[in-house]
Amino acid sequence: MKKYLLLLLGCGFVPAANAQHNEDSITIRKMANEILSNGNAYEDLRILTKTIGGRLAGSPQMVKAEHWGFKTLENAGADTVYYQECMVPHWVRGEKEVVKIVGAKSLNLNAIALGKSVATPAKGITAQVIEVKDFDDLEAKKDQLKGKIVFYNYHFNPTFVKTFYSYGDAVRYRGQGPSKAAQYGALAVIIRSMSHATDNQPHTGSTNYDSKYPKIAAVAVGLEDADLLSKQIAANPGTKVFIKTNCQTLPDTIGHNVIGELRGSVYPDEYITVGGHLDSWDVAEGAHDDGTGCVQSIEILRTYKKLGIQPKRTLRVVLFANEENGARGAEKYAEVAKENNEKHVFALESDAGGFTPRGFTLSMSTAQRNKIKSWSSLLMPYGAYDFDEEGGGVDVGFIHRALGVPMGELSPDSQRYFDIHHAPSDVFENVNKRELNLGTITMGALLYLIDKYGL
Amino acid sequence: MKKYLLLLLGCGFVPAANAQHNEDSITIRKMANEILSNGNAYEDLRILTKTIGGRLAGSPQMVKAEHWGFKTLENAGADTVYYQECMVPHWVRGEKEVVKIVGAKSLNLNAIALGKSVATPAKGITAQVIEVKDFDDLEAKKDQLKGKIVFYNYHFNPTFVKTFYSYGDAVRYRGQGPSKAAQYGALAVIIRSMSHATDNQPHTGSTNYDSKYPKIAAVAVGLEDADLLSKQIAANPGTKVFIKTNCQTLPDTIGHNVIGELRGSVYPDEYITVGGHLDSWDVAEGAHDDGTGCVQSIEILRTYKKLGIQPKRTLRVVLFANEENGARGAEKYAEVAKENNEKHVFALESDAGGFTPRGFTLSMSTAQRNKIKSWSSLLMPYGAYDFDEEGGGVDVGFIHRALGVPMGELSPDSQRYFDIHHAPSDVFENVNKRELNLGTITMGALLYLIDKYGL
Repeated sequence: MKKYLLLLLGCGFVPAANAQHNEDSITIRKMANEILSNGNAYEDLRILTKTIGGRLAGSPQMVKAEHWGFKTLENAGADTVYYQECMVPHWVRGEKEVVKIVGAKSLNLNAIALGKSVATPAKGITAQVIEVKDFDDLEAKKDQLKGKIVFYNYHFNPTFVKTFYSYGDAVRYRGQGPSKAAQYGALAVIIRSMSHATDNQPHTGSTNYDSKYPKIAAVAVGLEDADLLSKQIAANPGTKVFIKTNCQTLPDTIGHNVIGELRGSVYPDEYITVGGHLDSWDVAEGAHDDGTGCVQSIEILRTYKKLGIQPKRTLRVVLFANEENGARGAEKYAEVAKENNEKHVFALESDAGGFTPRGFTLSMSTAQRNKIKSWSSLLMPYGAYDFDEEGGGVDVGFIHRALGVPMGELSPDSQRYFDIHHAPSDVFENVNKRELNLGTITMGALLYLIDKYGL
Repeated sequence: MKKYLLLLLGCGFVPAANAQHNEDSITIRKMANEILSNGNAYEDLRILTKTIGGRLAGSPQMVKAEHWGFKTLENAGADTVYYQECMVPHWVRGEKEVVKIVGAKSLNLNAIALGKSVATPAKGITAQVIEVKDFDDLEAKKDQLKGKIVFYNYHFNPTFVKTFYSYGDAVRYRGQGPSKAAQYGALAVIIRSMSHATDNQPHTGSTNYDSKYPKIAAVAVGLEDADLLSKQIAANPGTKVFIKTNCQTLPDTIGHNVIGELRGSVYPDEYITVGGHLDSWDVAEGAHDDGTGCVQSIEILRTYKKLGIQPKRTLRVVLFANEENGARGAEKYAEVAKENNEKHVFALESDAGGFTPRGFTLSMSTAQRNKIKSWSSLLMPYGAYDFDEEGGGVDVGFIHRALGVPMGELSPDSQRYFDIHHAPSDVFENVNKRELNLGTITMGALLYLIDKYGL
């Protein structure tokens, strides 16, 4: 590709509808130039992922991550940094799981235990596998499941353009699959990973046991191995699988939200929250999920400070303590805000990957949404044009529900997210520096406008 | 990230403004479902890149690629497939180039000769390096350049959101840099790669010698090595570099555009062209540049055929013979179309990477652009919202200029393009299947609407 004749038209400025709009456009462009030229988020992420790595709540790595967050917020120029203590779950994977097809030639499957899953007995489980396409198929086969392993081979729907819809559709097999199988006497479950990746990485994520039924071991397998297993069963309906997992749920332990503030100049007791979750699955570096949300939030504070953009309200960057296997950090944050009768104007989250921005999901009144839409020409030059959806924000959802705070979440392009989500491939190398920075710019611009004009 | 509560709202359908709009929406959704569920483009690309690889015009690999293109268009269901012969340049790199800082500890630089560059003398060139920031700096230092190597350390501007603007700004150093240095007696040039990648890959691309001055060897270095060289020169202004390149320009040779047609049912003698270029740089697999444009164009034909979408005009898929170091394929295509007095309605190209779509650049009249904009709600669900720019389409540009044919080019998200553009890292693994498919959908939908309603 060569484009010698490409004209140097338009460098991101938008036509000024009026003087105010023009001033905002210039300020946002300054923020963008600073972030694109001198941004620190990518290097912050490198340190978080490469020197700490996976950081499940309760792990020693998560303690290191909290210290990293504290120090990084200080370096970014926060007026105040503090920890907010909360109790968090403490699930550990133990020795690596083994899942294999039993036979003349035993075949190892690329598998991973689901979060919160119990262990198999110490000697593992060997049993025949019954494949089911979906829950209806499970019901149809319920009389065959006693003493068997259930294999949920539910496919991630490729026809949704926004991949979070495919996830919303498929994730019930991870959440409810084990208990639904256990109620019919199954000994364990294998699920097809929630992904349409072109590789064979297995994807973890929490399951949720129904207390009415026995808790049985649950693993996910990579897509190629799910297809392989399905073929084996078709060729030999008596196919047996061996599963051994070594997970344990220990007593709850202490975790911390890490909070950094830029004090508001006019309304210091009004808050705007922006954050991501600091914890990640143990098997991944937690780069897109959700290292990027953390470093983007810190970068906004750094940029405001560097450029002398003084918010009227207090800007609070929150690195939430625990999202993956609970949401205890967010629960505590909302609880304390309610106890203290804090006034919160808006809460924004980035937890859908550090990909190139498309817009925001916004859960708020129509009038508030329309106010944000009236700024869309200021955000469009940086890639954000889509403001129409409700949804998003597991962590900020707590304060949204507890205090009625309007909330939003960055909507990055979603095509690559479920290739790496909860898989060992969620590593730093899969984050693109410019995409990460553009997400930060759109978030920083939205917060700037909300702080300036209210909601 | 978990989103148990994510609602299954909206699966990409747009609200129907009227019955016609609704029918179009349904047809486009069928195309999208087919491409997202059964698309072949990603596997086509795997074969092109992994079994053939780099394919510079005139190379044996390019001959293989032409055969691949012919067969793949046949398999996709084209009514007719044929070759269109043209003469193409025949430049060969020869043995791998060597560029190193001379000194007590000689340091190899990650370097690559520019396309069309001449070779150094057989024993190489060793000379002092003069660093210049830009052409103004070159003019200021013109009296120091005789017998030296000029190092253009011009930085890719990170503040343009659309990275093609950074390219348009920087590429003159690759195109004109060697001759501008040669006019002041320089022996060779080194340029900083046209990229803001976070790695050290060198990026090639054609240079253009001015016949008034001696032709001197030209290489590009990776960004880390550009910074290293700059530091060395700062520490020791007498720093010398050794350069040895082995390129040759052989006599022009025969190449072919590969063309596949779906014959129009109503106006078979009116044409809509869609294509990409089949050639690539020798050092890369040419995945994004421009394997993706080729497989997307073929996939549109396959999808129309599979779904029985019969175009009124003849749809011509063109895999252009030579874009990287000339544009001889496109030149020939326009020449033949003019000779035959063909009526062309529209020409579309994909040559900006197989990334997630953002829109189209459109070079046409305001009335025609407005017609396309009136369909934007049909394209938005697949990610295309930006229809405002002129530009694009090196290959279709020939028919645009020769016959006044309205032209367009897919505008994918550009953030990752210049990380890999013309570098050894432009490989299959850096293409995402869903992003590729979404680009195809938006292209296929635009062509469907133009064929149906005219322009």
